[in-house]
Amino acid sequence: MDKSLESVFNPRSVAVIGASEVPGKAAERRTRSLLEGGFDGDVYLINPKRSELFGRKAYPNITDVGKEVDLAMLVIAPRFLVSAIADSVKMGVKGVIIITAGLGETGEEGKKIEADILNAAAKTGVCVIGPNCSGMFSASANMNLLGVPRLAKGPISVLAQSGNVIDSLTHYARMRGLGFSKIISLGNAIGASFPDYIDYLKDDPETKVIITYLEGIKDGNRLVRTVRETIKNKPIIALKVGRSAAGARAAASHTGSLAGDDLIVDAAFKQAGIVRVTNIDEMFDMAEVFCNCPLPNGNRVAILSEGGGDNSIAADNAEIHGMEVPVLSRETQEKIKPFLLQGMPASNPIDYGGTAEENPHMITECVKVCMQSDEVDGIYITGFFGGFKDIIAPHVAELEEQTSKDLVKLVKQFKKPLFVNTSYARGAIKSLDILKSAGIPVMESSQRSSQCLSDLMKFAINRKKMDQMQVPEPRMKERPEVKQIFAKAGREKRANLLETESRDILERYGLPLPEAELICSVDEISEAVLKIPYPLAMKVVCPDIIHKSDSGGIKLNLNGEEEVQKAFEEIMINACKVTARDRVLGTLISPMVAEGQECIIGMIRDPQFGPVIMFGLGGIFVEVLKDVAFRVAPLTNKDIDEMIREIKGYKVLTGIRGKKPKDIEAIRHILARLSDVAIDNPEIEEIDLNPVIIHEKGASIVDSRMILET
Amino acid sequence: MDKSLESVFNPRSVAVIGASEVPGKAAERRTRSLLEGGFDGDVYLINPKRSELFGRKAYPNITDVGKEVDLAMLVIAPRFLVSAIADSVKMGVKGVIIITAGLGETGEEGKKIEADILNAAAKTGVCVIGPNCSGMFSASANMNLLGVPRLAKGPISVLAQSGNVIDSLTHYARMRGLGFSKIISLGNAIGASFPDYIDYLKDDPETKVIITYLEGIKDGNRLVRTVRETIKNKPIIALKVGRSAAGARAAASHTGSLAGDDLIVDAAFKQAGIVRVTNIDEMFDMAEVFCNCPLPNGNRVAILSEGGGDNSIAADNAEIHGMEVPVLSRETQEKIKPFLLQGMPASNPIDYGGTAEENPHMITECVKVCMQSDEVDGIYITGFFGGFKDIIAPHVAELEEQTSKDLVKLVKQFKKPLFVNTSYARGAIKSLDILKSAGIPVMESSQRSSQCLSDLMKFAINRKKMDQMQVPEPRMKERPEVKQIFAKAGREKRANLLETESRDILERYGLPLPEAELICSVDEISEAVLKIPYPLAMKVVCPDIIHKSDSGGIKLNLNGEEEVQKAFEEIMINACKVTARDRVLGTLISPMVAEGQECIIGMIRDPQFGPVIMFGLGGIFVEVLKDVAFRVAPLTNKDIDEMIREIKGYKVLTGIRGKKPKDIEAIRHILARLSDVAIDNPEIEEIDLNPVIIHEKGASIVDSRMILET
Repeated sequence: MDKSLESVFNPRSVAVIGASEVPGKAAERRTRSLLEGGFDGDVYLINPKRSELFGRKAYPNITDVGKEVDLAMLVIAPRFLVSAIADSVKMGVKGVIIITAGLGETGEEGKKIEADILNAAAKTGVCVIGPNCSGMFSASANMNLLGVPRLAKGPISVLAQSGNVIDSLTHYARMRGLGFSKIISLGNAIGASFPDYIDYLKDDPETKVIITYLEGIKDGNRLVRTVRETIKNKPIIALKVGRSAAGARAAASHTGSLAGDDLIVDAAFKQAGIVRVTNIDEMFDMAEVFCNCPLPNGNRVAILSEGGGDNSIAADNAEIHGMEVPVLSRETQEKIKPFLLQGMPASNPIDYGGTAEENPHMITECVKVCMQSDEVDGIYITGFFGGFKDIIAPHVAELEEQTSKDLVKLVKQFKKPLFVNTSYARGAIKSLDILKSAGIPVMESSQRSSQCLSDLMKFAINRKKMDQMQVPEPRMKERPEVKQIFAKAGREKRANLLETESRDILERYGLPLPEAELICSVDEISEAVLKIPYPLAMKVVCPDIIHKSDSGGIKLNLNGEEEVQKAFEEIMINACKVTARDRVLGTLISPMVAEGQECIIGMIRDPQFGPVIMFGLGGIFVEVLKDVAFRVAPLTNKDIDEMIREIKGYKVLTGIRGKKPKDIEAIRHILARLSDVAIDNPEIEEIDLNPVIIHEKGASIVDSRMILET
Repeated sequence: MDKSLESVFNPRSVAVIGASEVPGKAAERRTRSLLEGGFDGDVYLINPKRSELFGRKAYPNITDVGKEVDLAMLVIAPRFLVSAIADSVKMGVKGVIIITAGLGETGEEGKKIEADILNAAAKTGVCVIGPNCSGMFSASANMNLLGVPRLAKGPISVLAQSGNVIDSLTHYARMRGLGFSKIISLGNAIGASFPDYIDYLKDDPETKVIITYLEGIKDGNRLVRTVRETIKNKPIIALKVGRSAAGARAAASHTGSLAGDDLIVDAAFKQAGIVRVTNIDEMFDMAEVFCNCPLPNGNRVAILSEGGGDNSIAADNAEIHGMEVPVLSRETQEKIKPFLLQGMPASNPIDYGGTAEENPHMITECVKVCMQSDEVDGIYITGFFGGFKDIIAPHVAELEEQTSKDLVKLVKQFKKPLFVNTSYARGAIKSLDILKSAGIPVMESSQRSSQCLSDLMKFAINRKKMDQMQVPEPRMKERPEVKQIFAKAGREKRANLLETESRDILERYGLPLPEAELICSVDEISEAVLKIPYPLAMKVVCPDIIHKSDSGGIKLNLNGEEEVQKAFEEIMINACKVTARDRVLGTLISPMVAEGQECIIGMIRDPQFGPVIMFGLGGIFVEVLKDVAFRVAPLTNKDIDEMIREIKGYKVLTGIRGKKPKDIEAIRHILARLSDVAIDNPEIEEIDLNPVIIHEKGASIVDSRMILET
């Protein structure tokens, strides 16, 4: 746990610099929410123009307080910020929260002030929150600096990049009767960043689930690592905008955040174990589910109701959302049948129509069998639960309430999640209230309840896999020979490495390259062809020629020395049309590679996440279908597995049209080693292995390209 | 409008055969709901064991009523049904509603009774509803035969294949304060079928929108035609289960319905203009939207709120759901800017933060500009509308209510839909009530409100296209030559047509086939090769060889007579390994077809929808990605256009990797003509044109296969 953040969330005293009494002003709303929120430490209101505010003494400057202050919130014009922070540092603050906007997000002048703020704070290691943020809330300190009244305490913590979304979240929560542990508005996040807060909340005993709203991501690589650790204890749900062009545009005009490539964001979140949602109501649904439901062991759901139609709808929705609705074993079905009318299906979905409406205890019995069965990971009741009284007779109400109590006990005993989807969900009905207050999700929407149960299952399965996963340490191995290649390219002012150079690097990392010989002049051909078996491929080697095939720099299927000689001459002539002869090193010959499946494997350095590895099949899969998988390096075994399986064309690798399966182990190897290359060599900006041919056994990197950072 | 259905929905008198007073019984609940529902015609309760029921006279038999009866509802054991219906017919009934279950859905015995029922009813053209249904409701007649109390009147009509889903629908509606015009439980639908009811509701002035729940589909081809006509007046929303294996299993065990191939169901619904949903809450959301909102002209949405974060979320959701969030023209932006804080974005999303919270009239002004602009088809407000009083000050409430009234006026004036998504949606807030009671959707969920607005836009766009569409009449053209081919195959007991035969049929319909010559013996080669240019392809022609290439029946790229002769001999030898020499007609030679994009075009006869045309690209597109489009024949120009564009590989046809675009007009032509073949010739069960090569100009059907019905 970060010590300075601890003082920020649980300070003994708070100074409000720029406190105000003008109704509706940002400073007034926050001063008021602090005073009304019941904060039990000391509060100092600072305003040079006033001697009294809210019936309390006001100080002209924080330095006039005369006592040590733990936390300062600043709501003053940008030009006063730096000296106010310097003064706060003098008073021993551990943290400053800067509400003031109009800084880095508006241009260079603001960025200069931000740098000065950091500089002033750095002297004593003061934690800086904001600027351009809307404040924070800490339930443990009864401290409300958000200016939003009546915040309830609860198990949810919030990290958000938009004050306006924090407002929305608090309204939603109030409408739903939910409460918060910590709320942090990130703002421009020049000091403490997203991973810092996550790291703190990871060990906060009052936080059961973290929900976040993000517009842009800084330090994404660390974010992935921090989140991976955190979700061992508590789930993180994220709403990250910028999936669409319009969403990215709106984010950019809002906080100046660059949304980044959403495919990469999505991959990184998956990798980290973040549950991604697209809207706020879904976020709260999931937060409630995570706070209240036991984590299941898998994705197999038993569906029960008193009607075949409702069961069909639920079964469709379950499978649409990725759950499995298994046919139960004969043995389990026999245990269920006594509680159903004769002939009603017990196979799953289970139909207790005709028995349960008059005697809801039958539901308990059926659910109990499912709870006990190791064929089922979660239970989903759909239909009219809560309405039997209405449908059948008033006396059923009591039986239904008893059933609710029994269901609550079963969930506690067997620790499997139970979801209830009912057309009566909106009603004030006692049997449903019993379920709701025990944390069993009761929802009107079959879509939403299926999605939530499915997301819970996916999270649980993923977390289990993560427990077994080996995360390679981000290492920086000094490989002097490789660094020399970079140095040489640097001296020659080349960003593009020659193929001979990139081959050299890849070979040192154990990547599978076909053998090759460099031919610099015609004289060398006779000797070179002795080393490489026919038929041959020949490629030009020249720093000025990137697209070799476009400029006639490639010849294939060469047989015999004569053909090789002719090809060499032609390639050299073609190259000299593009550049000077002394810029052309020569040609590289290598054997024609055996048949196999064409793949593309690459690395890019993403501005938000750092090194990102890409994998896809070649041809139309990439060009037409954009069928590629991304993961942030370093790659774990789990990442590699998932990125291979997640492409739509995966089946091609397992063998189609009578072709044998391809060597997936070889792909795994290349991805793992390329991840090492990316981590060890920050000098490389981009790697393109294209095509890589995957054989039934082994793989060949037929062409490779590396671009250095400039 | 169907006359007999008119008497069913608005009868002057109803007899309940099997009326009962035993609480909770199906007959009791329905008798009670009829008597309590306020039906203003005559009611006759029939029960041979009782002289009085519900304080009314009971008759031993319907024939004892002594007056003409319009409608009879039967709730008696299966064995009594046929004679009761015969008696009802005597009394002049126009319709019978059979609640009784345990008929066709349970086996042969029940099917026999069903046949007898139809037979008894047929004499006077009596309309049969059910059996195995849960009854019906007709608001115009105050007639409630569903056994569900307290049904409110309203603009929604329901057709459902599950009584239990009808129950769910009525509970949902009650919770939401919605009402119904007609509700029909289809049951086994041995008489009146889904299209009959649709046809009736099409002209029912009290029905504004039709919602349906389906497990299986009968007479799907007529359904497509009927729905197409209906949606010109009113939308149809369908929940059709069986998308998943478990859903299909549940439906099969429920009503014995076969779910069918969901890809075909989905295509047929699209073609008909049905709005398909996956759950009941979504169904009601859309029903309300259709009842209340004007139809937009396109899919361009303007998004407005007082916060950049909420705007970003809304913009993402809009694009995810297929709406366009256009950047507004400079001119329109200039009109909006006066109502925003300086520097706030007016480009769309529009951010009125800082002005609207204190003066919500700014919202009216911004919305007005969007309503007036021809760049916008629909308007989406997100944020805290309804909560400004709470956030700012009590006096804002009144301003907000005035804004609501103004927004309602704008929607009426400009006839563009306005949706409001707000975190205050659950609250009892006057400004929101003003919107809600004027039919403006106010929703808590940004996902759901985006989806609804998008579905409304898609429906409107589709309907506009359908207005311009030419639907070919399903014709049956006698083509004697074609019928002779079927007759010959029939005599020879062949279901598979020879390629020469299928070519003959396709040619008569103007489909593009490469020229071809049949060679029956070596002697014929010299003359045949004069007619076909080299290089040649050669294929065996033999009724016993379906997979020609597997049994060595294909030779490609033949040059010169000698090669042709050798190929002929080899093919004949290979063929004779599989079958007797006299079964082998010979070989077909044709020119090697020029390069192009490989496609697969086909026809199957679907048990639910009849002739269905399929289109897809060849190779991995079909084999790995299952990337095919279906449409029910006859195909309209709109169907053809959509099926070509909806495949994921469409881009391949427009030219990739430097290749020129392919002749899409040629694909259109093949699809249209194949639709004719399918409609004219019900004898053909399946057609497989594979591969079809699409050139830059024209197309060639390289191989074709037809299978006849047996």
